[in-house]
Amino acid sequence: MARFEGALAAAGAAAGLFPGSHADTIVQVCTRAAFDTKQLARDARLAGTLAIPFVKALTAQVASVSVESARFVHFGATSQDVMDTAAVLCLAPATQRIDALAVEVGEAAASLARAHGKTTTVARTLLQPAAPVPFGWKAAMWLAPFARSLPHFRRAVREACVLQLGGAAGTLSAFGARGQNVAALLAENLALTPAPTWHSARDAFARFGSETAILTGLAAKIARDVSLLMQPEIGEVAEPAGVGRGGSSSMPHKRNPSGCLLALEAATRAPGLASALLSELAPEHERGLGQWQSQWFTLRALAMAASSALAAMADVLQGLQVNTEAMRANLQRSNGLVFSEALSLRLSREVAERLVAQAVREERPLQEVARGALAEDEWQALFDAQQAFGSAGAMIERVLDDWATSRENALSFPRGSPRL
Amino acid sequence: MARFEGALAAAGAAAGLFPGSHADTIVQVCTRAAFDTKQLARDARLAGTLAIPFVKALTAQVASVSVESARFVHFGATSQDVMDTAAVLCLAPATQRIDALAVEVGEAAASLARAHGKTTTVARTLLQPAAPVPFGWKAAMWLAPFARSLPHFRRAVREACVLQLGGAAGTLSAFGARGQNVAALLAENLALTPAPTWHSARDAFARFGSETAILTGLAAKIARDVSLLMQPEIGEVAEPAGVGRGGSSSMPHKRNPSGCLLALEAATRAPGLASALLSELAPEHERGLGQWQSQWFTLRALAMAASSALAAMADVLQGLQVNTEAMRANLQRSNGLVFSEALSLRLSREVAERLVAQAVREERPLQEVARGALAEDEWQALFDAQQAFGSAGAMIERVLDDWATSRENALSFPRGSPRL
Amino acid sequence: MARFEGALAAAGAAAGLFPGSHADTIVQVCTRAAFDTKQLARDARLAGTLAIPFVKALTAQVASVSVESARFVHFGATSQDVMDTAAVLCLAPATQRIDALAVEVGEAAASLARAHGKTTTVARTLLQPAAPVPFGWKAAMWLAPFARSLPHFRRAVREACVLQLGGAAGTLSAFGARGQNVAALLAENLALTPAPTWHSARDAFARFGSETAILTGLAAKIARDVSLLMQPEIGEVAEPAGVGRGGSSSMPHKRNPSGCLLALEAATRAPGLASALLSELAPEHERGLGQWQSQWFTLRALAMAASSALAAMADVLQGLQVNTEAMRANLQRSNGLVFSEALSLRLSREVAERLVAQAVREERPLQEVARGALAEDEWQALFDAQQAFGSAGAMIERVLDDWATSRENALSFPRGSPRL
Amino acid sequence: MARFEGALAAAGAAAGLFPGSHADTIVQVCTRAAFDTKQLARDARLAGTLAIPFVKALTAQVASVSVESARFVHFGATSQDVMDTAAVLCLAPATQRIDALAVEVGEAAASLARAHGKTTTVARTLLQPAAPVPFGWKAAMWLAPFARSLPHFRRAVREACVLQLGGAAGTLSAFGARGQNVAALLAENLALTPAPTWHSARDAFARFGSETAILTGLAAKIARDVSLLMQPEIGEVAEPAGVGRGGSSSMPHKRNPSGCLLALEAATRAPGLASALLSELAPEHERGLGQWQSQWFTLRALAMAASSALAAMADVLQGLQVNTEAMRANLQRSNGLVFSEALSLRLSREVAERLVAQAVREERPLQEVARGALAEDEWQALFDAQQAFGSAGAMIERVLDDWATSRENALSFPRGSPRL
Repeated sequence: MARFEGALAAAGAAAGLFPGSHADTIVQVCTRAAFDTKQLARDARLAGTLAIPFVKALTAQVASVSVESARFVHFGATSQDVMDTAAVLCLAPATQRIDALAVEVGEAAASLARAHGKTTTVARTLLQPAAPVPFGWKAAMWLAPFARSLPHFRRAVREACVLQLGGAAGTLSAFGARGQNVAALLAENLALTPAPTWHSARDAFARFGSETAILTGLAAKIARDVSLLMQPEIGEVAEPAGVGRGGSSSMPHKRNPSGCLLALEAATRAPGLASALLSELAPEHERGLGQWQSQWFTLRALAMAASSALAAMADVLQGLQVNTEAMRANLQRSNGLVFSEALSLRLSREVAERLVAQAVREERPLQEVARGALAEDEWQALFDAQQAFGSAGAMIERVLDDWATSRENALSFPRGSPRL
Repeated sequence: MARFEGALAAAGAAAGLFPGSHADTIVQVCTRAAFDTKQLARDARLAGTLAIPFVKALTAQVASVSVESARFVHFGATSQDVMDTAAVLCLAPATQRIDALAVEVGEAAASLARAHGKTTTVARTLLQPAAPVPFGWKAAMWLAPFARSLPHFRRAVREACVLQLGGAAGTLSAFGARGQNVAALLAENLALTPAPTWHSARDAFARFGSETAILTGLAAKIARDVSLLMQPEIGEVAEPAGVGRGGSSSMPHKRNPSGCLLALEAATRAPGLASALLSELAPEHERGLGQWQSQWFTLRALAMAASSALAAMADVLQGLQVNTEAMRANLQRSNGLVFSEALSLRLSREVAERLVAQAVREERPLQEVARGALAEDEWQALFDAQQAFGSAGAMIERVLDDWATSRENALSFPRGSPRL
Repeated sequence: MARFEGALAAAGAAAGLFPGSHADTIVQVCTRAAFDTKQLARDARLAGTLAIPFVKALTAQVASVSVESARFVHFGATSQDVMDTAAVLCLAPATQRIDALAVEVGEAAASLARAHGKTTTVARTLLQPAAPVPFGWKAAMWLAPFARSLPHFRRAVREACVLQLGGAAGTLSAFGARGQNVAALLAENLALTPAPTWHSARDAFARFGSETAILTGLAAKIARDVSLLMQPEIGEVAEPAGVGRGGSSSMPHKRNPSGCLLALEAATRAPGLASALLSELAPEHERGLGQWQSQWFTLRALAMAASSALAAMADVLQGLQVNTEAMRANLQRSNGLVFSEALSLRLSREVAERLVAQAVREERPLQEVARGALAEDEWQALFDAQQAFGSAGAMIERVLDDWATSRENALSFPRGSPRL
Repeated sequence: MARFEGALAAAGAAAGLFPGSHADTIVQVCTRAAFDTKQLARDARLAGTLAIPFVKALTAQVASVSVESARFVHFGATSQDVMDTAAVLCLAPATQRIDALAVEVGEAAASLARAHGKTTTVARTLLQPAAPVPFGWKAAMWLAPFARSLPHFRRAVREACVLQLGGAAGTLSAFGARGQNVAALLAENLALTPAPTWHSARDAFARFGSETAILTGLAAKIARDVSLLMQPEIGEVAEPAGVGRGGSSSMPHKRNPSGCLLALEAATRAPGLASALLSELAPEHERGLGQWQSQWFTLRALAMAASSALAAMADVLQGLQVNTEAMRANLQRSNGLVFSEALSLRLSREVAERLVAQAVREERPLQEVARGALAEDEWQALFDAQQAFGSAGAMIERVLDDWATSRENALSFPRGSPRL
C-alpha cells in the first residue's frame, strides 16, 4: 500500500499536479514508513476499509516531515484504488511462482512421457483394469491439460494484475484532463499495465480464481493417480523416499503418499474459493458493498493452495519411482482379461463374452482359453501388449509438441520503482 | 496440540497403562513446551502432517527430562487424533463467541421489534414499495430465522466439538480393553465429550460449517436491508455515527454503511467455504487423503467470517438510528399506491387497476381518486396504514416468544485441565 | 399450485371471508384445471414469476363457471405464497423417500456391522494398510454418521416443509384480524404446519440443502470405500451381480462399481447446489430479487441427487459380496507390517522401526523377525489380529444403539385435502 | 448419441475398417432410430451409464436390418466417447446462442454509452451518492467486462466443444495404426475439432463453466444497477413497459424489475454449478467414478442460466427508459455534497470537511456555503457537473474500441453430417 502511495505521488508530480518536492517527501516517507498494524486493523473495522486509517497514518507521518506535502498524500485516489492495486502487487509475484511450479510439474510429466513410451502398464477405468497402455501415455494424459491450461492461466493473470486507479467515482475526476496521463505514469512506476477503472468489474479476478483452481485440480489429478498406484496391493509407483517423508506417527512401517495428500487437500478447497469470486461479479453501482472488500482473502488462499499443490507434485513427479516390474506383474495377474476388448472386436462381442466367462470360471488366462479361436500369428499379436497401444505414441508426440509451445512466455513481473 | 498430549499422558497413566510419574513429566513439559514453528511447518510439508514433527519435537523435549517418560508421549494416539482434537479445542471458544454475538444481534432485533410495533414503514417487494407494515414487524422478520437457527447452530457445535481419539486404525487398539476408559478420562481432562472415532466421518464439521454460514447469511440479510434503507434517497435508518466510522478516503460528505459492509463481505465468502466442508464427506477408508487435513483452514475462516458479520450487525442494530419521519414521508410520496392491494380486495382487481392507473396518470393520491368509490368510513379505514397491519402484531408476539425460548442454553466450553 | 389455490379458497370461506359456494366452485375448478404449460412458461418470463400467468389462467377458468367466484381466486395471497407452498408440497414426498432410503442404507450397514464383528480385515489410512480391524467395525463407521445425521435431516425437513402465507407485504393484511385463522385453516387443508411469513427468511431451505448434501456425502463415503475395495488387486468386496449391472460397452470382462458411481456422481454435485442455497439468505427487504425465485430448481436437483445416491447404496450394501478369504489373504500379504503399531507400543518406537526395516529388507514376515524379542505368549497375542481389535466391539455396540434410536420417527407427510 | 454412432460407423468404413455397406445401414438406422427412453433410463441406472443400454438398443435395431452390420455398431468406441461427444453436440448450439445474446447485451450497453456521454447522473459508492458522472460512462463500465470476457468465453467454448474418441483405454487401440485417421474422419463428420483423448482431463469443461458463470454474473451486474435505479425513490431508469411485464399478483400498482430478477436469479445459481465442474478435475486413472458422468447435468443448467440472464438483460437494455430529469433532480437533492471530493482537492481535506459539515448542519447547498472560499470562475467550474467528468469520455472511447474488436469472430458450429 505504501508502494502505491509513493508511486502515486511521483506520478502526480510528474504530471504537473503539484511540485516534485512534495512527491520526494512522500516517496521517502513511504519507503521507510512503519505502521501499528493492530491499531490499523481495529480502525479498519470501524471505517469499513483498511485504506482510510492507513492513509490517515501515512499522512500523519508525512506531515511530521512537511505539512504542505501531506496535502498531496493519496491525491486523487480512492480507498479501493490503493486496496486493489496493493492486492495486485502482492498477487503478481505469487502468480509467477505458480507459473514456474506448473512448468516444473509439466516438465516432469513430459520427462515421464518421453521415458516410458514403451513401458507397459494397464489403463484403469472405473477403478478396474481395462487395457494395456504405455505408462508414458498416462503421463502424457497428465500433461495434456497443463499444456491447454497454462496459456489460459497466464492470460488471466495478465488481465488481472493491472493498475486500479479511478478516484472517487471511477472517472479520475480529480486529475481533470490529465487523468490518463497520471494513470500511465503510475502504472509505469509500479511496472503494471494501465486499464479502465474496474472498481465494480471483478471479472478478471473471478477468471484468475477459476484458472488457479483448474491448475490446482490438475495437480490433484496426478496426485489421485499416483496415490492409487502407490497402494501396496498395486505398487506400480512410489513417491520419492527421504528423511521425514510420508511416515506415520503411530505406525513405523508406513510409506504415505504425503506429497499427493498436499495436492488433494488443496484441490478440495479451491472450488469453493473460486466460487466465492464468481459470486462477487455484481457489486452495487460504482463501488459495491462486500464484494471486492474480501477478495484479497480469497485470492491469497487460492494462490497458496495452488502453490502448495503444484510444489508437492513437482517434487513427487521429479523423484517418482516407477516400478515396471510391478506393472508387468499386475498385467499378468489380470489373466489376459485386459485384452477382452481386442478379442471382442476381432471376433464378436458374443464370442468374446463366452471366452471371457470361461476364463473367469476356469481361472485360466484368456490367452489359453482363446487359443484355438484365432490363427496363431493373429493370436500372438492380439495378446501382445506392445501391439495394443493404438495411437498412444502419436498422442504422446502431439501432447509433447503442444507443451513445448504452451510453456513458452512465462509470466514475469519486474518490481517497479517510482520515477522521480 | 500440547494440551492434547499432556491430557493424553494423564489419561493413560490414570487408566493404568504406565506410571503416573511419566505422565507428570509429560504434562509439565507440555505446559511450557516451545516450538520452532517455522521448522515444524517445513517438516510438516514433507511429513504430510504437522503432527509428526510436532510429536517428534515434543518427544525430544520430554526426553531431555526423562528418556523413559519420552516413550509414553503420544502413547496410543495417531496424528489425526491430535490434529482433530486440537482443531476442536480452538474451535470451541470461537463458537462460544459466535453464539454470544448471535444472541446480541437477536436481542437488538427483538428490542426494535418491541419498540416499533406501531411505527409505520412500507414493505418493499422486488425493491418496490408494496404495502404499509410496522417497522417492528420488519425487525421481527429479521429475528425469526435467528430464533429458528440458533438451536441448530448449538446442536451442530455440540456434536462437532467432541474428542477425537481412535489410535492408528481408529479402534483404540493400543489400549486393549481399556480404550473406552482412556477416551473417557482424556475427554474429561479436556472438558470435551467422548465420541466414537470420527477420523473418516466428517459430517459434524460439515454441519457446523453450514450452520455457521447460515448465521452469517442472516446477519447479511439485516445488513442488506439496513444498507438499502440508508440510501440517502430513502434515508429511513442509519448506522450509528461515531469517530472513524463509515467515512470515505476521498469524499468528506460520505456516511457509509460500513458495518453492513462487513456482514455482506463475510456472507459472500461463507457459502464457498461451507461447500468445501460439504465436499469432504467421503475420505478414503479409515483416514482420507486431503479432506480432514485442510478442514481447520476452512473452519477458521468460517468462524472468523461469522464473528465479523455478527459483531458488526450487533453494533449496527444496537445503535440503529430509526428515522420515523422519513418513513412517513416516503409512505406519503407513494401517493397512496401502497394501498392498492387493499383497494383491489375491497372492490375488485379491475376497478382497482382503473383507479390506480388514474392516480398515476393524474399524479394524484389514490385516496383522492378513490374517494367516491367507497363509503366514507370504509374509505378512511382502508387508507389508514395502522389498520392495514393485518397479523403483524400477532407475528411479532410469536417471534418474540420463539426467540425467548431459543436463546436459552448458550454454548459453554469450560477449559479442562489434565487431572493427575 | 392448483392445490394451494383450492385449499386457500376453502380456508377463506371457512374463515368467513366470502360465501362457501365460491370456494366450492374454485376447489372444483382447481381439481380438474388444465393449463397450457408452454404458454405459462413464456408469460412467466415476462412477468418474472410463474404465479401471475397461472393465477390469471385459473381465474379465467373459474370465471367461465362463475364470474362472481372468480373474484375470490388467490384471495389475499401473493405470488410467492403459492410458489413457495407449491415447492414445499412437491418437496415433502421427496423428503419422505430420501428418509426411507437413508434408513435402508443404515439398516444394511447395521446388518454388516452385526454380521462381521469378528471378520478380520485391514484398516487403511492414506490408502496404505494400517492395522487389523473387524469388517463389521468398518461398517459401523459408515453407520455412525447416518445415526447422527438422520435426526438433523428430519428436523430440517420439518422446519422447511411448512406453509407459506403472508400476502402482499407478508403481514396477511388482506384478512384483517382473521389472518392467523385463515393461515391455520389453509395449513390444515394442505396438511402442513403454519409458520410466520418466511418470504425473505430462507434459512430453512438452506439448512435442508446442507442436510441433504450431507446424506448424499455419507452415501458417497460408503461408495468410496466399496469401490476401492472392489479393485481387483484388492477384491475384498463386490457390488451385487446381476443382468445389466456394471458392464462395459467396450470391454466384456469388466465388473464396474456402477452403484458406487451413482453415489459418487451425486456427491460431486451436491456441495455446489447446497452452496447456492447458502448464498441466498439475504434477499432485499420483504421479497428479494432472484433468491427464492430459483430455489425450487436447486431443491429439486438436490433431492434427486440424494435419492439417487442413497437408492444406489441401499442396493449395493443389501447385496454386498464380502470376500473374507481375500481379506485374510491381503492381511497376510502385508507380512505382518500392520502389527507395527502394536510392536512399537510394546517395545519402543526405535526397536520396532529396526525390526520393521529388517522385515522389509529381508522380505520376511515381521512375526518371524520379531520372534525373539518377546515372550512366546506375548508374541502370539501381539500378532493375533483378533486380539488387536481394541474397542472395536464396544464401538459397534454403541453405534448400533445410536442408530436404533435415531432411525425412529420417520418423516410422514399425509396428503391433505381442502375441507369445505 | 445416434448422430455420434452414425458418424462413427461412416468414419470406420471410410478408414477401411469394414465395408461401407455396414456403415450405410447403421447411418440409416441412426437417422430414424426411436428409443423407449423410460426403459433406457432404468437400465442406465443399473449399468452406471446411459451408453450401454443405448448401444444395446441401437444394435438390436440395426440387427433387425442386418445382423452382420450390427457387429460394427459403436465399433472401437467406449461409453464415454458417445456420452461426452453427445454432450458437446448439445452444448455447441447452446453456446452459439449465449454468444449471440452476450453480443446483444454488449451492443445495447454500447448504444447507451454512445448516447449518454453527456447525460449527468451520480456515481454511487457503497450505495451512497459519490460524484457526478455521465450515464454513458456507467454503461461503458457495464460493457468493459463484456469486452474482456467474450474472447475468453469463446476460446473456452472452442476448446471444450471438441470430439471425444479414445476407445476402451483412451489410446484408440481398436483402430490399430488407423486411430488418428478414424478420429479425423469422425470429427469431420460431426463438424468438430479432433483432440487427444480427454476422458480424465476435464479442464475444458471446468473452464467453460467458469466463463459461463462470469457472463451470467456480468448480466447480473447490470441487473443489480438497473433494479436499484428503478427504486421509485430514485427512479432514474425503468425496464421497458409492456403487457404482462413486471406486474404483481396482489398489488395493481407495481412495476417490478422482472427482467433484472431473471438475471439475478441465474447469477445466484451459477457459481455453485461452476464450482461443481471445478471439483471434478481429478478423476481416477483413465476413467473416473462420478465426475464426467454428471457433467452434462451441470453444463445444461449453466447454459440455461446464462441464456436466461443474457436474454433478459438484452431485452432490458434495448428498451431501457432513461429518466434524465430524475437524474438531474437526484443530483440537486444532494445539495452539492457530491462535489465534496473536488472541493477537498482544491482547498484541503480539513477546509472541505468544515464546509461540508456546515452545509449539512444548515441544510444549505454546498455551493452556497463554499461561495466565498474560491474565485468566482473557479467556483463555477468546480460545481459544474459536466466539468467534473475527468477521463470519463476517454474511457468510454477506449471501452467502445475494445468492444468493437472483441465482438468479432462469433462462435459458429455448423451441423455436420456423416460422409458416406
